[in-house]
Amino acid sequence: MQTFEPVDPAYSAKVHESFSRQQFMIMLGASIADLKPGYCEVHVPYRADLTQQHNFFHAGVSGAIADSAAGYAAFSLMPADASVLTVEYKLNLVAAARGDRLVARARVLRSGRTLKVCASDVYVIQDGRETLCATSLSTIMTMVGKADH
Amino acid sequence: MQTFEPVDPAYSAKVHESFSRQQFMIMLGASIADLKPGYCEVHVPYRADLTQQHNFFHAGVSGAIADSAAGYAAFSLMPADASVLTVEYKLNLVAAARGDRLVARARVLRSGRTLKVCASDVYVIQDGRETLCATSLSTIMTMVGKADH
Amino acid sequence: MQTFEPVDPAYSAKVHESFSRQQFMIMLGASIADLKPGYCEVHVPYRADLTQQHNFFHAGVSGAIADSAAGYAAFSLMPADASVLTVEYKLNLVAAARGDRLVARARVLRSGRTLKVCASDVYVIQDGRETLCATSLSTIMTMVGKADH
Amino acid sequence: MQTFEPVDPAYSAKVHESFSRQQFMIMLGASIADLKPGYCEVHVPYRADLTQQHNFFHAGVSGAIADSAAGYAAFSLMPADASVLTVEYKLNLVAAARGDRLVARARVLRSGRTLKVCASDVYVIQDGRETLCATSLSTIMTMVGKADH
Repeated sequence: MQTFEPVDPAYSAKVHESFSRQQFMIMLGASIADLKPGYCEVHVPYRADLTQQHNFFHAGVSGAIADSAAGYAAFSLMPADASVLTVEYKLNLVAAARGDRLVARARVLRSGRTLKVCASDVYVIQDGRETLCATSLSTIMTMVGKADH
Repeated sequence: MQTFEPVDPAYSAKVHESFSRQQFMIMLGASIADLKPGYCEVHVPYRADLTQQHNFFHAGVSGAIADSAAGYAAFSLMPADASVLTVEYKLNLVAAARGDRLVARARVLRSGRTLKVCASDVYVIQDGRETLCATSLSTIMTMVGKADH
Repeated sequence: MQTFEPVDPAYSAKVHESFSRQQFMIMLGASIADLKPGYCEVHVPYRADLTQQHNFFHAGVSGAIADSAAGYAAFSLMPADASVLTVEYKLNLVAAARGDRLVARARVLRSGRTLKVCASDVYVIQDGRETLCATSLSTIMTMVGKADH
Repeated sequence: MQTFEPVDPAYSAKVHESFSRQQFMIMLGASIADLKPGYCEVHVPYRADLTQQHNFFHAGVSGAIADSAAGYAAFSLMPADASVLTVEYKLNLVAAARGDRLVARARVLRSGRTLKVCASDVYVIQDGRETLCATSLSTIMTMVGKADH
């Protein structure tokens, strides 16, 4: 994995503060479990109301946290006066998300000034064993001069 | 828009029944507002717990219903003994989802036996005016011989 | 289809001039067959050296002209002092490209100042009959202050 | 990187033979430089007729070999009586492809019976130094009972 130097030394407080204002993430029970410059990990514990017809995690939850982790991995490398915007993402669902915890791990692959490209993988954990259930590639935009709040 | 002949005459009951078992869709307050062979429309009314940091609909909600509408548009064309699986989708977020209702409209572009390709667009409605906020392209798989429940 | 007002009145000359400097397009035998603000159509006649193992057009040719048409549809809406850059695209191959002419038709779906989102479809023509063989969604960037040549 | 067991012991001969029948790959000057079960590397040396307006490799060449490498990485894991079909791919262009050689490296991320998901990265080599210029994610289909020729 590539190493990045954050331009905002307070990147961690900034990311956590922004995440805490996303009511949809709170509603999903999502939390940031790990954060480094250019890297973010988001966890969601199992809940029955997050499932599809077979009682696995709904793909919509995988998509939401894959995108959220990617956005915050990118945001960690942005200047203090910028906000973050997902331009687009593409997600392959590769296995059923059967388990008791969903974990999205996102890393910045390429950090341009305006655009950052991220890879974000979603794993499901069952009895301590991880299975890749989704893999994504996304484009994130730095909105300069528009602080996040 | 292309016209399709459903192979399962009971496609509508099948789609609604499957949707009703997706607890995550229920939790989002989502409902199927329109359904035709190869076409599905999913609505979500505004709720504060579906938002991001600026009080607009969270992109995760747009992604979830874009995918759900695409899956059910494809499912409407599948035989009675098949279940539906999203292989992958790609979503561009083109405008902030500021409004009081989110509407995903999905149509099948190409209906192969094993794979169906769908376009699914998400609009936000504010004061009766619609704005395109996301557009997606997805690949949906027919799982033959695995009925949905 | 949406109608756009070009900011560069000389957009057509600019697009054709840029296209004419793409040696790879010349090598493919590609040409711009139609161009309007926010719309571009690129044609490639059949040649044996553009094929895959079954003597159909190679998917690489479909991808190349889908992207090229999208880029120039977007470029037609950019200011005179800007150049164009494809950020990313996603392409679904929906039918074999068997025929004597490949036609990519791209239109701008959303024209932001920095980013433009385009849909680009590729058709193959055989005996006057068109078949959709690929459909794509792409993100194109305006590089302000970097004229194209 | 994951290790895969090929089901067709003659996978290497099969892949090279199929590649050799792709006239478009021959025309690009492309060759398979490395092949393992679930892994394929395709090289293209610089040629002026493969360029865009700034004399770098055209994105169409990156897209074509990213897809070709992904398809053959997947094909290496397929049974002898199957042929290979790209369902879709998504490609991010992350740097200008300025250099004297383009190298696509594809690996299978998930090998299902019907569908395989691949990551394919394209590097450009200049004076012995590699730069990532494109990264992609693709879905490849096994066409059982349809041998490749």
